[in-house]
Amino acid sequence: MHVLALDTSTPKIVLALRTDSGDFHMSYMGTEKHAVRLAPLLQNLTKTADIEFEDIDMIGLGVGPGNLTGLRIGISTILGISSTFEIPVVQLNSLELISKNVSTNLPKVVVRKARKGFVYAQIFDGNHPKPRVYSIEEFSDILSKIEEYVLLGDGSVLFDGEKAPEWSWYPLAETLLHETISRVKEAVRFTEIKPLYVQKSIAELNLGGRKRNGV
Amino acid sequence: MHVLALDTSTPKIVLALRTDSGDFHMSYMGTEKHAVRLAPLLQNLTKTADIEFEDIDMIGLGVGPGNLTGLRIGISTILGISSTFEIPVVQLNSLELISKNVSTNLPKVVVRKARKGFVYAQIFDGNHPKPRVYSIEEFSDILSKIEEYVLLGDGSVLFDGEKAPEWSWYPLAETLLHETISRVKEAVRFTEIKPLYVQKSIAELNLGGRKRNGV
Repeated sequence: MHVLALDTSTPKIVLALRTDSGDFHMSYMGTEKHAVRLAPLLQNLTKTADIEFEDIDMIGLGVGPGNLTGLRIGISTILGISSTFEIPVVQLNSLELISKNVSTNLPKVVVRKARKGFVYAQIFDGNHPKPRVYSIEEFSDILSKIEEYVLLGDGSVLFDGEKAPEWSWYPLAETLLHETISRVKEAVRFTEIKPLYVQKSIAELNLGGRKRNGV
Repeated sequence: MHVLALDTSTPKIVLALRTDSGDFHMSYMGTEKHAVRLAPLLQNLTKTADIEFEDIDMIGLGVGPGNLTGLRIGISTILGISSTFEIPVVQLNSLELISKNVSTNLPKVVVRKARKGFVYAQIFDGNHPKPRVYSIEEFSDILSKIEEYVLLGDGSVLFDGEKAPEWSWYPLAETLLHETISRVKEAVRFTEIKPLYVQKSIAELNLGGRKRNGV
């Protein structure tokens, strides 16, 4: 089985490809935009692995929450490939992918910066099945009630607590493939792909505001 | 500064490239040999990053210990690039690279399988500055005297103790770049590159045996 997996919800573009001859990983993090970098990375990855898009049997896709622009680039790219070749897609919670980067007995808390004053966060303690958007104050309160925990993600700098090292703030290619393959049964058709935006984008909020003001 | 870094001491080929526009990572682990895969990976990495070998200012190289054949491929490839363009090389202990994959307050122990009955290992507790080859019995004894520790590397399956997850048994591209850049002052000319083979290869041992036997 040929499996392609990617996440674009963080500043790091992470790609993984499993073929009959092994696993290929590729990533980029830098000053260039996901919109500029993703397509050539994907093309080089398939070329390196000697695979065509039509040979891919399954796609794993980090659907957020996270950087909205990055997510849109990743999701629309996969929509294109998945719809063209009718490849099923396993949708992956990007915060959960990040949570797999450290192994600890303590509860893991993944926090990503959202718009000013807010974070996307999820506490991996068995009681919080979904990511949510919180105000920084609200989430500080929640954390203050947990005795010990490990913080991951670029939002961890906003809170007190033990912080995981920075390399572990982004999904790992290994995790992407592993999660995709272990959730193959949850795969959906491209028409059912649904980003975990969690909060409305600033553009939508502005539009809502203007509408309420009768503009 | 353009920095290339790689490690070929494990079954996973790990490559990293820092350019002015950001960091590119690439890796392969599978059924094909390092000798077959390394050159095309390297070529695709530089192509993806739009960099020529002659643009590279510094190279970081995992010099082992680890799989001898893999190490030889990696080291000879870098010898070629480094000697052609006079690029300085930072030599990195491959077990130390692996040790950076987990963050824990416990001592970290990196163990790699060597020839039958032996392991390459290093205990990262501040008292063991160098990797060594141990017999499995000898190293079991040593571990039995440490109260708590975390095991990493493919040799960890041979011993009792808390094991780090399998993805953390191989150097991370992030660590390769980080270590190379933080040790730039230790860079050497290609003529001074010295693999950390630690033990003699089986071929050398056989030769020694035959010599001792007067063959």
